[in-house]
Amino acid sequence: MAYTHPYRIRFGDVDHAGVAFYPRLVSYCHLAYEDFFAEELGLPFHEQFITHRWGSPVVRLEGNFQAPLSHGDRMEIEVRVLELGRKSVTLRYNLKNLSKKTEAAVIDVTHCYVSMGDFDSIEIPEPIRQGLEAYQKRCT
Amino acid sequence: MAYTHPYRIRFGDVDHAGVAFYPRLVSYCHLAYEDFFAEELGLPFHEQFITHRWGSPVVRLEGNFQAPLSHGDRMEIEVRVLELGRKSVTLRYNLKNLSKKTEAAVIDVTHCYVSMGDFDSIEIPEPIRQGLEAYQKRCT
Amino acid sequence: MAYTHPYRIRFGDVDHAGVAFYPRLVSYCHLAYEDFFAEELGLPFHEQFITHRWGSPVVRLEGNFQAPLSHGDRMEIEVRVLELGRKSVTLRYNLKNLSKKTEAAVIDVTHCYVSMGDFDSIEIPEPIRQGLEAYQKRCT
Amino acid sequence: MAYTHPYRIRFGDVDHAGVAFYPRLVSYCHLAYEDFFAEELGLPFHEQFITHRWGSPVVRLEGNFQAPLSHGDRMEIEVRVLELGRKSVTLRYNLKNLSKKTEAAVIDVTHCYVSMGDFDSIEIPEPIRQGLEAYQKRCT
Repeated sequence: MAYTHPYRIRFGDVDHAGVAFYPRLVSYCHLAYEDFFAEELGLPFHEQFITHRWGSPVVRLEGNFQAPLSHGDRMEIEVRVLELGRKSVTLRYNLKNLSKKTEAAVIDVTHCYVSMGDFDSIEIPEPIRQGLEAYQKRCT
Repeated sequence: MAYTHPYRIRFGDVDHAGVAFYPRLVSYCHLAYEDFFAEELGLPFHEQFITHRWGSPVVRLEGNFQAPLSHGDRMEIEVRVLELGRKSVTLRYNLKNLSKKTEAAVIDVTHCYVSMGDFDSIEIPEPIRQGLEAYQKRCT
Repeated sequence: MAYTHPYRIRFGDVDHAGVAFYPRLVSYCHLAYEDFFAEELGLPFHEQFITHRWGSPVVRLEGNFQAPLSHGDRMEIEVRVLELGRKSVTLRYNLKNLSKKTEAAVIDVTHCYVSMGDFDSIEIPEPIRQGLEAYQKRCT
Repeated sequence: MAYTHPYRIRFGDVDHAGVAFYPRLVSYCHLAYEDFFAEELGLPFHEQFITHRWGSPVVRLEGNFQAPLSHGDRMEIEVRVLELGRKSVTLRYNLKNLSKKTEAAVIDVTHCYVSMGDFDSIEIPEPIRQGLEAYQKRCT
């Protein structure tokens, strides 16, 4: 089963229109990303970064926003592996509005990997690849 | 000539790696968007929203990130009209790193228009369409 | 017993130095504030705002920061009622770093109350006062 | 004369009530802080941090908020040195709402200095002290 990250839209997230400001929806994905690695794969992001000096900059982002998320709405962010290459991975985030029973947004984020010393591109580190592959199997 | 919005990457914008966190690059586009309407088209965003009750939610977002923006880097966000439909407009933001002489990112953002009372879809309001069309001509 | 809000410092929260940027510590307090009202007092903040049209702008803020919160640290925000007046309330937030076993920060935030129609000052609405008074008793 | 940093309250800064969310007012101070050092003292913050490895964590924060800043308001942040010690400095930020002709907020922020290698406390680095002292004289 796919990992889901629960969230409730708070006052500080919404704009003058009372709906979540779209750059914030992108931030939520990073929140889900970090917690997915820590809780589902057992690879806390800060250890990847601090201990192993692996960075995972975003190279591509695609988002489709179908329905607004309003102040107080409960949502759920489902994380899936859309494409797993040798040097990059694309994760898909489905933002579901549980309060309104709508699909709020689908956001695909592609990360490559770099060594933090020189920011040079590297292959996806082995423990991360293994974790992502095992997760893909669990999801299907 | 295309409108450009200047910005310098500040401490509060960068992450642990010292580079601008990608959801923040999306926020910069909204900054450029608001200032483009106010300064280039003479249609301040808060008047659109407060006086006319027009909303312009984002329905689609596509970003390609080519090079990191680091703490202290000066950048420039160039705004262009990529596609102007009857009910939606896609703006392209070119984020240029002036300090490093690199193209940092290209981000396309599609807005539709709604009336704020009921959030119902409307055609692009006439003054906005005229402003965008005239701007397109000035740019070519 | 005092209400506590758990939080883990994430990549998107830390700055170039790897520690939580101080304006973000203030944001965490608002997060704890909203969840405290929803979970502990049963008065969801968005209902106060949307249904009752009560606003609670901050009039005073005082923070003392004793120890940094680093990327990956687990923390806990304890919420206490420091002073409950007729028209304003001061809440104290103790930010405890569970990973490092340090007191990270103490932040006091004073809210007054206004009616959202005209932004005129009002007394603390009765259900909120009762909730806060009962909570004070539970805490001592 | 005191250094002032101009700013306009944008859509992405305001909350559901249409006024700037208070943690964001604190962020504005950091914006003014960075630009004050770069533009007024000629000591760009990223050079302090990256070249010299000086950090300046905030140890104390005190804010008084007198009047709301609304979407579209033009403001000005005036920076003054309130207290200059051997190891810490307190800067005062006066947030003036130029559109409404009100004093919106006064925020005092105390920074200490640390060497980034070990986060050990250090005296205010000499170039910074000199810059701040000279600025204090220019202001009176």
